[in-house]
Amino acid sequence: MLHVSRIVRLSALATDYDKESVELHAQLHGKLGVRSKVSLASKHDLSLAYTPGVGQVCVEIARAPERVFDLTIKHNTVAVVSDGSAILGLGNLGAEAAIPVMEGKAVLFKEFAGVDAFPICLATQDVDEIVAIVRAIAPVFGGINLEDISAPRCFEVEARLQDLGIPVFHDDQHGTAIVTVAALLNALKVTRKNLAECTIVFSGSGASAIAAAKLIQSFGKLGHMPEAADILLCDSKGIVGRARTDLNPYKREIAETTNRRGMKGSLADALRGADVFIGLSQPNIVTEEMVRTMNPQPIVFAMANPVPEIMPHLARAAGAVVVATGRSDFPNQINNVLAFPGVFRGALDAGARVINEEMKVAAAQTLASIVIEPVPERILPDPLDKSVGFRIGEAVAAAARQSGVCRN
Amino acid sequence: MLHVSRIVRLSALATDYDKESVELHAQLHGKLGVRSKVSLASKHDLSLAYTPGVGQVCVEIARAPERVFDLTIKHNTVAVVSDGSAILGLGNLGAEAAIPVMEGKAVLFKEFAGVDAFPICLATQDVDEIVAIVRAIAPVFGGINLEDISAPRCFEVEARLQDLGIPVFHDDQHGTAIVTVAALLNALKVTRKNLAECTIVFSGSGASAIAAAKLIQSFGKLGHMPEAADILLCDSKGIVGRARTDLNPYKREIAETTNRRGMKGSLADALRGADVFIGLSQPNIVTEEMVRTMNPQPIVFAMANPVPEIMPHLARAAGAVVVATGRSDFPNQINNVLAFPGVFRGALDAGARVINEEMKVAAAQTLASIVIEPVPERILPDPLDKSVGFRIGEAVAAAARQSGVCRN
Repeated sequence: MLHVSRIVRLSALATDYDKESVELHAQLHGKLGVRSKVSLASKHDLSLAYTPGVGQVCVEIARAPERVFDLTIKHNTVAVVSDGSAILGLGNLGAEAAIPVMEGKAVLFKEFAGVDAFPICLATQDVDEIVAIVRAIAPVFGGINLEDISAPRCFEVEARLQDLGIPVFHDDQHGTAIVTVAALLNALKVTRKNLAECTIVFSGSGASAIAAAKLIQSFGKLGHMPEAADILLCDSKGIVGRARTDLNPYKREIAETTNRRGMKGSLADALRGADVFIGLSQPNIVTEEMVRTMNPQPIVFAMANPVPEIMPHLARAAGAVVVATGRSDFPNQINNVLAFPGVFRGALDAGARVINEEMKVAAAQTLASIVIEPVPERILPDPLDKSVGFRIGEAVAAAARQSGVCRN
Repeated sequence: MLHVSRIVRLSALATDYDKESVELHAQLHGKLGVRSKVSLASKHDLSLAYTPGVGQVCVEIARAPERVFDLTIKHNTVAVVSDGSAILGLGNLGAEAAIPVMEGKAVLFKEFAGVDAFPICLATQDVDEIVAIVRAIAPVFGGINLEDISAPRCFEVEARLQDLGIPVFHDDQHGTAIVTVAALLNALKVTRKNLAECTIVFSGSGASAIAAAKLIQSFGKLGHMPEAADILLCDSKGIVGRARTDLNPYKREIAETTNRRGMKGSLADALRGADVFIGLSQPNIVTEEMVRTMNPQPIVFAMANPVPEIMPHLARAAGAVVVATGRSDFPNQINNVLAFPGVFRGALDAGARVINEEMKVAAAQTLASIVIEPVPERILPDPLDKSVGFRIGEAVAAAARQSGVCRN
């Protein structure tokens, strides 16, 4: 599972934060603690929080199972579940090495939306086992945030858990999709482009690219916007299309509703005459020349981490009007933290049983709307803005209620 | 799984705290929250706690797996795992109904020993599945506290997880055993009885009774005290002995080292000439007459909850010098909270891979020693004394190091 050569190579990409981050983690021994919400100063306190009083709380839940959402931490608690198979850009380092990331997610859940989240890192990468374990541990949780599980297993795990009765959401797919689409909405506003006239080209056709493409399509289906003129996904073999015989089932499915003209060829071919580039793939695979072949006022989201598909200054030199990346040291960072805390805030508050397309669309629209007047260097709110999660939460809760997926 | 008739009957035993406890739980929506140990006020903060800095922390753990104990919440975090099959005295109410108790345990861990504990309530009661799930979720945890899992499955679950590399401890067995033995040590001091001359009779031969009997034996084996003259366990069929053919494997095992004289008969027969009664069984099954047949200065621990094997005033009227129960409204409450937080505090601090007999013996001795001058109405510290857990922790950590079960 652990490829030392890969780790050595990754170390060559060391960031300025590496040493300081390791020191911080060693000093804190982890970033998360639990806290008691009850006082235990007297025997009376103990009798209410624990025995004998707690027995009646158990009996209430046994009698009326739905009260578990009211009487326990299930009300506000989300599991951040990973098998460590696709940790950040680092690859398959296993369950233990995933913990610092999942703790980080839990901290973000708390700080940006008041959600109590807890990391669950699984010492198995078998889909059947992951599904069975999540089902078994679900009683305590009001939601499941799947994280850093490699494709295509992540699709199956998520799909098989949709009947759990609580929201199960793979953040690498849908969190990325929501923030990407919010950024796209504002980039279109800045460039006065109309989605119905846009061709959108993805570099990458993994979990997050497919989810983003589907969410763009959902905007059309749900009547909020016209459909995009066309969407093209490219993988390492070129443009994804129905004529390809080497596609996995997930690419085959998205091929049914994208690439309307049946294009074949490379990423460079796809970009010719396109309006929007969305990169969720590899460093440095887009050249200035490729950007110059795009339609006027091109939009370039180059989100490969830590090195983008094209560096922002090169994209701008080639004419790109709006440029976004995944990095915090450039303008327009497309950062999942803008989405997942608020999405679960809304789902928990509404008692949603799932997170559906309506809720994701509401999250993306609200996220976009928070930037009152988007300009090329500011199409998204600051990731540190602690009002974002709660505003998205309200919109997501409303969408959940309207679309009829709530318990009550 | 849910027996409504049993719930209705249990409701008849309602305590004064029931209504207030349910109201408190409904108001709080659970007793536990998470908290972030890091500030997220600046981009710099975010870059250290999360990406890009966190990537290097993942790489460090992948390179040197033991660093997970240093760099993550595994350092100080325990899972409180239950399948809801034996909730308090309420029986098998299932995973959801177990949550309020497991939250309560987690709160006690935090308040009494600074341990970050998190409830894991499993929607399965299959031993193989429980074992597999605990193994799979173990990466995040520095210890596993098993709770309210019915006998005899609890024995097998605990035994099969002893190779996990982190302590796995069934509190209903060993927590109860430690506090019971600590109480016994001080009761012997009060009555100037010598363990070597004592016959100790248990009513009940379930998980906690067998564990307490074994811990008393460990005091002899580990050279801290002479062995008890004899230990007798009684179940619903009478005295447990090698001649019985109806014993489960766990009772058969304890029969090998108890009941030296091969006694047969009832609990009343066992008590005749005994020095110590330890009840972990049913309400009201010991009479004053039975206590009168015991040796002079009898010790009576009647721990059935909420109604003891004999009410304290009756036991005293029949001559018992030291009387203890499981209840907070009588003197000498034998309450697990005096043991489990400190036991895990010590195990985590020492980096213990297991919790062995040496550590349990150290916990019991230290707990007893905290009461400087035991008297009949005070053989144990106040359960609210927040120094107890840390003092036990120190002793348990020292015992772990001395017995060679630590990682380092």
